[in-house]
Amino acid sequence: MRRPLPAIVLAAAAGFMLSAVALAAVKPETAIHYRQGIYHAMGWNFGPMNAMVRGKQPWDQADFSKRAQRIAFYSQQLLEGFPPGSDTGAETDARPEIWQNFDDFTAKMHNFQDAAANLAKVAQGGDPAASKQAFADTAKACKACHEKYRKD
Amino acid sequence: MRRPLPAIVLAAAAGFMLSAVALAAVKPETAIHYRQGIYHAMGWNFGPMNAMVRGKQPWDQADFSKRAQRIAFYSQQLLEGFPPGSDTGAETDARPEIWQNFDDFTAKMHNFQDAAANLAKVAQGGDPAASKQAFADTAKACKACHEKYRKD
Repeated sequence: MRRPLPAIVLAAAAGFMLSAVALAAVKPETAIHYRQGIYHAMGWNFGPMNAMVRGKQPWDQADFSKRAQRIAFYSQQLLEGFPPGSDTGAETDARPEIWQNFDDFTAKMHNFQDAAANLAKVAQGGDPAASKQAFADTAKACKACHEKYRKD
Repeated sequence: MRRPLPAIVLAAAAGFMLSAVALAAVKPETAIHYRQGIYHAMGWNFGPMNAMVRGKQPWDQADFSKRAQRIAFYSQQLLEGFPPGSDTGAETDARPEIWQNFDDFTAKMHNFQDAAANLAKVAQGGDPAASKQAFADTAKACKACHEKYRKD
């Protein structure tokens, strides 16, 4: 006997379809340019932070912290830039393995988000040594994803 | 009679020289890619907001507000992407007039920052009509700069 679907299932299905429509409306190249934009903005801020950590630029805790807040903010915005089908459509360094292992990719992205949130918090605390350690941890989280999912 | 420069002036001069060194270290194409990245990230968020305002996508106050916070955050990060000399070095839609009228460009950017900050605040308040008005005001501030300083 087939029973009518409960309202909650119908609502969930409608929500899913709506999401699918919204996703479908995004062209792959738009997603690619968006995520590359976020990566560029990260690099712009990571550069001076890295230079400070390596002593190639004078340490400036306020500037380091400002940039750490940005990295943490951006880190929350990357995953949506990898919708299904955006492995092609514009020049991209994203490996197709991302979409074959999306759960693993997502887990690595969450690790990065956690590391970046910690970096922002520690940097605001004002301790240079702790800030440098949190920066190294964040860079490690970046690398874990790049090694597996970014083209050389 | 020449008097020795006060310490505050010397400190300011040292600070300026340091800034000049830091600026000189940034390649024009790096700045161009950075600011284009921020503009792409803005567009990614402005798109759905615009669709909601025009009734082409269902109104979602929480999503609208989330995107408004991002726009406000990004708006603070654009000006540093236009250092002197970054009118060339990579493909760019930035007109050279930006650097010839940098005070005016800066004023227009500040207007945009104010409009975006207001949009973020109003959107968080939860009133759709007020949110739509604040969005229109922000779009107007974008346009004021694009008309004068962006290539067609």
